[in-house]
Amino acid sequence: MLKLSDLNYYSKDDFVAALGNIFEHSPWVAEAAAVRRPFAGIGALFAAMTAAVDRAPDETLMTLIRAHPDLANKTQRATGLTAESSAEQDSVGLDRLSDAEYEAFERANSAYRAKFGFPYIVCVRRRTRDSILRDFERRLPNDAKAEMRTSVVEICRIAALRLDQLVASEDRLPVHGRLSTHVLDTHSGRPAAGISIELTELSDLGQSRVVARAVTNSDGRTDQPLIGGRPVPIGRYELMFRVGDYFAGRNVPTSDPPFLDRIPLHFSVSDPEGHLHVPLLVTPWSYATYRGS
Amino acid sequence: MLKLSDLNYYSKDDFVAALGNIFEHSPWVAEAAAVRRPFAGIGALFAAMTAAVDRAPDETLMTLIRAHPDLANKTQRATGLTAESSAEQDSVGLDRLSDAEYEAFERANSAYRAKFGFPYIVCVRRRTRDSILRDFERRLPNDAKAEMRTSVVEICRIAALRLDQLVASEDRLPVHGRLSTHVLDTHSGRPAAGISIELTELSDLGQSRVVARAVTNSDGRTDQPLIGGRPVPIGRYELMFRVGDYFAGRNVPTSDPPFLDRIPLHFSVSDPEGHLHVPLLVTPWSYATYRGS
Amino acid sequence: MLKLSDLNYYSKDDFVAALGNIFEHSPWVAEAAAVRRPFAGIGALFAAMTAAVDRAPDETLMTLIRAHPDLANKTQRATGLTAESSAEQDSVGLDRLSDAEYEAFERANSAYRAKFGFPYIVCVRRRTRDSILRDFERRLPNDAKAEMRTSVVEICRIAALRLDQLVASEDRLPVHGRLSTHVLDTHSGRPAAGISIELTELSDLGQSRVVARAVTNSDGRTDQPLIGGRPVPIGRYELMFRVGDYFAGRNVPTSDPPFLDRIPLHFSVSDPEGHLHVPLLVTPWSYATYRGS
Amino acid sequence: MLKLSDLNYYSKDDFVAALGNIFEHSPWVAEAAAVRRPFAGIGALFAAMTAAVDRAPDETLMTLIRAHPDLANKTQRATGLTAESSAEQDSVGLDRLSDAEYEAFERANSAYRAKFGFPYIVCVRRRTRDSILRDFERRLPNDAKAEMRTSVVEICRIAALRLDQLVASEDRLPVHGRLSTHVLDTHSGRPAAGISIELTELSDLGQSRVVARAVTNSDGRTDQPLIGGRPVPIGRYELMFRVGDYFAGRNVPTSDPPFLDRIPLHFSVSDPEGHLHVPLLVTPWSYATYRGS
Repeated sequence: MLKLSDLNYYSKDDFVAALGNIFEHSPWVAEAAAVRRPFAGIGALFAAMTAAVDRAPDETLMTLIRAHPDLANKTQRATGLTAESSAEQDSVGLDRLSDAEYEAFERANSAYRAKFGFPYIVCVRRRTRDSILRDFERRLPNDAKAEMRTSVVEICRIAALRLDQLVASEDRLPVHGRLSTHVLDTHSGRPAAGISIELTELSDLGQSRVVARAVTNSDGRTDQPLIGGRPVPIGRYELMFRVGDYFAGRNVPTSDPPFLDRIPLHFSVSDPEGHLHVPLLVTPWSYATYRGS
Repeated sequence: MLKLSDLNYYSKDDFVAALGNIFEHSPWVAEAAAVRRPFAGIGALFAAMTAAVDRAPDETLMTLIRAHPDLANKTQRATGLTAESSAEQDSVGLDRLSDAEYEAFERANSAYRAKFGFPYIVCVRRRTRDSILRDFERRLPNDAKAEMRTSVVEICRIAALRLDQLVASEDRLPVHGRLSTHVLDTHSGRPAAGISIELTELSDLGQSRVVARAVTNSDGRTDQPLIGGRPVPIGRYELMFRVGDYFAGRNVPTSDPPFLDRIPLHFSVSDPEGHLHVPLLVTPWSYATYRGS
Repeated sequence: MLKLSDLNYYSKDDFVAALGNIFEHSPWVAEAAAVRRPFAGIGALFAAMTAAVDRAPDETLMTLIRAHPDLANKTQRATGLTAESSAEQDSVGLDRLSDAEYEAFERANSAYRAKFGFPYIVCVRRRTRDSILRDFERRLPNDAKAEMRTSVVEICRIAALRLDQLVASEDRLPVHGRLSTHVLDTHSGRPAAGISIELTELSDLGQSRVVARAVTNSDGRTDQPLIGGRPVPIGRYELMFRVGDYFAGRNVPTSDPPFLDRIPLHFSVSDPEGHLHVPLLVTPWSYATYRGS
Repeated sequence: MLKLSDLNYYSKDDFVAALGNIFEHSPWVAEAAAVRRPFAGIGALFAAMTAAVDRAPDETLMTLIRAHPDLANKTQRATGLTAESSAEQDSVGLDRLSDAEYEAFERANSAYRAKFGFPYIVCVRRRTRDSILRDFERRLPNDAKAEMRTSVVEICRIAALRLDQLVASEDRLPVHGRLSTHVLDTHSGRPAAGISIELTELSDLGQSRVVARAVTNSDGRTDQPLIGGRPVPIGRYELMFRVGDYFAGRNVPTSDPPFLDRIPLHFSVSDPEGHLHVPLLVTPWSYATYRGS
């Protein structure tokens, strides 16, 4: 990672070379920000870059938009994406789509391009694949002006995440969210320790995939958040708690088979940068959950 | 159905002909009961039949046990089961097993027969297929004496269900259970009407299958129990509630996508003749369930 | 009680004599209804009486209103109320007010009479004393026209309750509500039997008073509703559950002193003719309640 | 406060003068500890003092026990307690007992002294007045040997709290507990901000008294723990939440009067040095609480 304190004293050319792809194929954004140095923090640097985008005329913005690749386009992947685009698309699994998903993305890309004449852009690290497809459907009926605006918003989100990964500073951009849980055993009045938890990203079209596994510690929490240090992708999830094993291990009398064994909680994430807490209050005969804080 | 009041005045031969298969291929049980007529109720009739079984010597019981077919045995199905056995096995889906299930049943039957020299008998209408396989595994380590006793218990359960279906009386045998639910909307403080519910029998080996669909009425309940008028098979279930549609239809403000949409409850049934009540207390941001009464 | 079937064949004079005080000191209402006989049910009889009131000119209604006594007025009580008024006022405890309450009623009566020139009328059996005083305060700012209308509504409610007590019919007037509870022990997954319950009517001004005591039966319910067969008075209540004794009696491990001992639930009744269900789900370490149905 | 780093270099006389009353009227404990200096922390200092007590012969311990005053004894208060004893007794309200409480303490003291020949000693800052009286009753049937042991345990608890107040060190003695709450509005899926909370110490004999008032912040918590920086006295408490005002202020539709207005939670504290968390999950129609962590 680059230090902001160093970037502040780079030559202009080095600065632009370093940050030229924060906005895809668009070093002019870094160039415009370079003259505002030194920056007190990464927040100020990012603000200077987005200010340059805000000031740009529509033709420049359209060029910026067109500099982006299609999502999940195999031909483009073969001929070459920027390293940043490639990593972003891979992180959300766009490099290993099921056939049904691949077709859905193709259809969506074509329909979008046919209507607007520019590629569909979304900050993929903020959404699950299912949620990207739903976003496609929701945006397709919009008019071109609205879509230009939305594209620029998404481009700035992509840029913020790239900058966050590239530049170290004492302040942080508010691009990380957190998903956490807590299991309280209301049968014994204590945090439930040693409960196996599995977090799965649910998918209608492709395959659901496990994104985190953990075991609760003595405080009934997981040592690390289930998702942290990155946006929590908008989408549908399942949290599965193996409470049957837990109560059996404590010799709590129950029925045969036990009334509750593996408890699934299904919920959606809507705010990738927020903290979502999904606790479980449980006895062998009852449970409750809620969106906590 | 036959009326008990008529059976009481049948000739002995007619009586035995009518009830000869209540105990599989074993009219001697009906014969022994015939002389105790008249019966005040079906409970008394059944007690007379089981008393005859209880008095029978071990060899007779072994003949009774051997009169039963293997579960899910295709050859036996081809060459002919009693109508009763056939209906029972079909009701639990033993006529449409997946390959994996079929093999599991074959393996289990063979292992059981090899060890004990008589067929594995279980009252299939009291269990899901998964639960039958688990019962197999649990009983296989037993000794022959214990298995004889268990087989007779299961045979009497089969007989009770057959008798319940064949004979009408003012009293009823306690062979029926009930599974019910109730949805309370604690956001508005009212029963939740119009919520779509789906009950699925969960399976590890074969395919999970939907066993009931319902929509809650104005009292937040279903007009009919989800399962009723028969045993509630021992096994694992999922109840799925479409609460997202419900709250959207009431214009309750929520997140996008809604935090809660389809809520699955997973639980097991352990008492087929009992009343199991599994309610849901729900807001757009929280829910709770418990084994009710 | 009188039978409706008999009333239908009374002479007109006898009919009017029997029902002359259903509307306080106003036999003309019964007289108007008499000619509509025979009535198919008590609902039809009551409808005929209220129809007569609805048709009455304003002066008649004012006479009807003025025929009512002040609430809790000691002088009037000394000189004589109708037996009906007296019983109604006593049932809600207006004959045994604390000094502070008595003064509050005096002040309210005087202010109301001074403003409107007629007595404040409310169906006292539908409210606790605190709630009557609150109703006073709420109605005092109204204009005379609105208060005349409200008075007539209350008079009809009084009449319905008097008629319900006096006349037996196969149908019933919808004047009774119900307050019930249910205790579920989610520690053991069973209804909680043997829990002592106390229902107290809460009062800001006077003394809170216990209105029901019960012990839960094997289904976790009370054999009789806590309040039933009459309106459930609008007002504030406390339900107190002795769960500490219950769990101690079952040797459930707990802290010393136990985290939960006597659990109070405070709630208000707003619909005297409805069914209000206030259950308790409880472990030694947690509990929940909700307005059930 | 004195700094441990300074105490380590005091003359022996100054050290003993400073810590002479950590154990009531018993400077010999400080004297024994003085020779073990320097101490790495307050924990080590306290361990050295309690080690001296552990080594002391029974006669010395009896003198230590007899050096303590009776609880709530007016004569002794008039003739003079140590400043420490006086502050401790006042903190728990022993200087302002109701007549009934005063008599109960007198009776308990006399009975205890009559049986054992030494005063009843308890660390009063770890208990409410009711809980002290209950402890009296529980200990009175013990034999003298057990009571000597218990007295020494309580004396050490008193000493730990005195030392914690007198001496500053980087480490802390584990003598402080915490009582906290959290209100989650599950109607809107957010922490409930602006809810007035009142914590009352419940008493059977004397007067219940409010010990903390707070308003929830934007995270649904109180800025300070309800009790913190001291032991949480063993005893019974009420937490009262004004949820009616909260929901009215948010224009949430409800009944009239609102089903829930002021919600009381009653619970007991059993571990004065632990962290007890008592949250409230609430809608206008339901609520839940549990012993959290």
